[in-house]
Amino acid sequence: MEGSPVPSTNGFSLMLTIRSHAHDYSVETFPSLAKVLEGLTDARGALYLLDGEVERIYRNEITATVPESLRVVIEATEEQKSYERLAPIFLELLSKGLKRDGTLIVVGGGVLQDIGCFIATVLFRGVRWELVPTTLLAQSDSCIGSKSSINIGDYKNQIGTFYPPHRVMLASDVLSSLPWDEIRSGLGEVIKLQLIAGQAGFDELMADLKDLNPNGGMEVIPKWVERSMAVKKPYIEDDEFDRGIRNLLNYGHTFGHAYESATRYAIPHGIAVILGILTATYVSVRLGLVAESHFLELKQRLTPWFHPYETTLLTARRDDIFKAIRHDKKNTGDSVNCILTSGPGRMEKRKVDFAGELVPAVEEFMDKELAAQPV
Amino acid sequence: MEGSPVPSTNGFSLMLTIRSHAHDYSVETFPSLAKVLEGLTDARGALYLLDGEVERIYRNEITATVPESLRVVIEATEEQKSYERLAPIFLELLSKGLKRDGTLIVVGGGVLQDIGCFIATVLFRGVRWELVPTTLLAQSDSCIGSKSSINIGDYKNQIGTFYPPHRVMLASDVLSSLPWDEIRSGLGEVIKLQLIAGQAGFDELMADLKDLNPNGGMEVIPKWVERSMAVKKPYIEDDEFDRGIRNLLNYGHTFGHAYESATRYAIPHGIAVILGILTATYVSVRLGLVAESHFLELKQRLTPWFHPYETTLLTARRDDIFKAIRHDKKNTGDSVNCILTSGPGRMEKRKVDFAGELVPAVEEFMDKELAAQPV
Repeated sequence: MEGSPVPSTNGFSLMLTIRSHAHDYSVETFPSLAKVLEGLTDARGALYLLDGEVERIYRNEITATVPESLRVVIEATEEQKSYERLAPIFLELLSKGLKRDGTLIVVGGGVLQDIGCFIATVLFRGVRWELVPTTLLAQSDSCIGSKSSINIGDYKNQIGTFYPPHRVMLASDVLSSLPWDEIRSGLGEVIKLQLIAGQAGFDELMADLKDLNPNGGMEVIPKWVERSMAVKKPYIEDDEFDRGIRNLLNYGHTFGHAYESATRYAIPHGIAVILGILTATYVSVRLGLVAESHFLELKQRLTPWFHPYETTLLTARRDDIFKAIRHDKKNTGDSVNCILTSGPGRMEKRKVDFAGELVPAVEEFMDKELAAQPV
Repeated sequence: MEGSPVPSTNGFSLMLTIRSHAHDYSVETFPSLAKVLEGLTDARGALYLLDGEVERIYRNEITATVPESLRVVIEATEEQKSYERLAPIFLELLSKGLKRDGTLIVVGGGVLQDIGCFIATVLFRGVRWELVPTTLLAQSDSCIGSKSSINIGDYKNQIGTFYPPHRVMLASDVLSSLPWDEIRSGLGEVIKLQLIAGQAGFDELMADLKDLNPNGGMEVIPKWVERSMAVKKPYIEDDEFDRGIRNLLNYGHTFGHAYESATRYAIPHGIAVILGILTATYVSVRLGLVAESHFLELKQRLTPWFHPYETTLLTARRDDIFKAIRHDKKNTGDSVNCILTSGPGRMEKRKVDFAGELVPAVEEFMDKELAAQPV
């Protein structure tokens, strides 16, 4: 689309590049958010779309480098991520002078990324955008892969586009300001990717996470951000539009999405994915794909990363959960597309009969396994 | 994206296929709108987005083939083509049951196409759509080329996408119900394309149009619909995203767009393009690119196709015209990108100095050439 980005001199290093239908893009790491922002001051025609929380926490760094007239600040809520509520953001960007040869710089987590990606896809039929992901979930998973998801009315994530950023810049210092549950939520996707990769990577991850807790152990994270991207890269390059092999990355997500919406987003996304991974594995056991011992071992190893959100899930109405599973946008008939597993590194897409197979398995999982969860 | 469309047996013939980044697509011709609609009754999961005017004129044909529960009807106005006003259309399509493996069938002219294309691009991150263009302008020009343009707030056409229909179906009988100025508006783009193609095609077109008038002569039109597409095809295939050679198709448009907006859309698009072609040619004369005799001949031959809209244009405020030219989305600095000409078949993109070259030439064109237009 445009030429290659000029390499920064602010201590960055190139982690990897991703091939895409629109343009290839790089993922670069920086020692700090301040260094990222310093390097962006001469970006061509830049306007900044900032997460309000990030702007509050990093007020000094942002004030020092980004003029207020170039900032558009929004709160990263599920409600904000709606087609209707994007209209004033488009208008603010236009009135603040974003031009077709300018650059939209998006700083924030998944919600900011969805909003920024959607806007950048359709404004001027596509404008250059660069992404500074500030959550572990965005850094380790969503920042690559091109997708945006936007709500409209009461419909969740039914609108979206495929349009990757032109450049992704990771600052590891921003992770240290995240609440513990945000860290655990990010780890949900990290765990999912290593389960997809195979037994060895998953075991190594579990060993590394032993010393991670709300008070320390964060130094292992950058390694797993990089390892996560390495797993995801071939799936999104070979199947950017999610019509085949990339579907496997939805492991845990059909259930996870339903758990999020049935609890009105009281469970953070990645933690719902961990619960979804366990559910998919339980369904796989019931369908004879994998031994129960695999499920039990997984449950034991993953409990620290979702507990006590199983309690939140158990308060949800079962009807809401099953309606959400059935209406997941990936489903088209009376059966449900699930990513099931016959063990780490062995995921497969299966049509599961809704009433005959899926509902009884999920009911049993919740009644026998979650309700009996040791505290 | 999906497999090839199943060939219809309703008397269709394949006119051409177009290559695109998203998917190749076919343009087919049918003897009547009724035949098109009959052939669509078994389209997979179809929902229809219909122009209200088309629905009124072809009520019988539509009632016979399209259940009311599958119709979403909108009026084809410039106001409707706005980001904000698309929200209820998305919601109606979703509540009427459009699914990710369904098909959106769009029946109407340019406004319906813009709206349908935009919706089909972003709904479910891209859904199959098929287009039945019902104006001469849409049939001869806009139906191929992938683009959508949407307004937001007071900003015109700043939002859009590139996403061609999966299939284009032309029914020549719909052109007979068009008002005369809609025919002339469509001819604006036909004329533009033949001027781009070269002297021979333009001369042949002018000869064929001699017998076309509000009371007859429409039998020459299908030939020129096909010839227009043949001219446009290589430009949109070689430069789908409009970054190079395709720019030449904007011949007449920088001025034409400004004339439309400065008259609050009182001049139909294609007629404004004819006036824009004359303006661009006049500027080309002033810059020494082409002899004045070429301009004078062109003016004489094109007058029947725009008169008396030059009077409408002369009532516009000059300030509004020049502001619109300057703020055209293709411009980025103090000069204006124009497609100029050194004769039929010889268009080129030039940066024209706004204050020093463009304004005086356009003023002179309007004062000396348009004001003195013979009636």
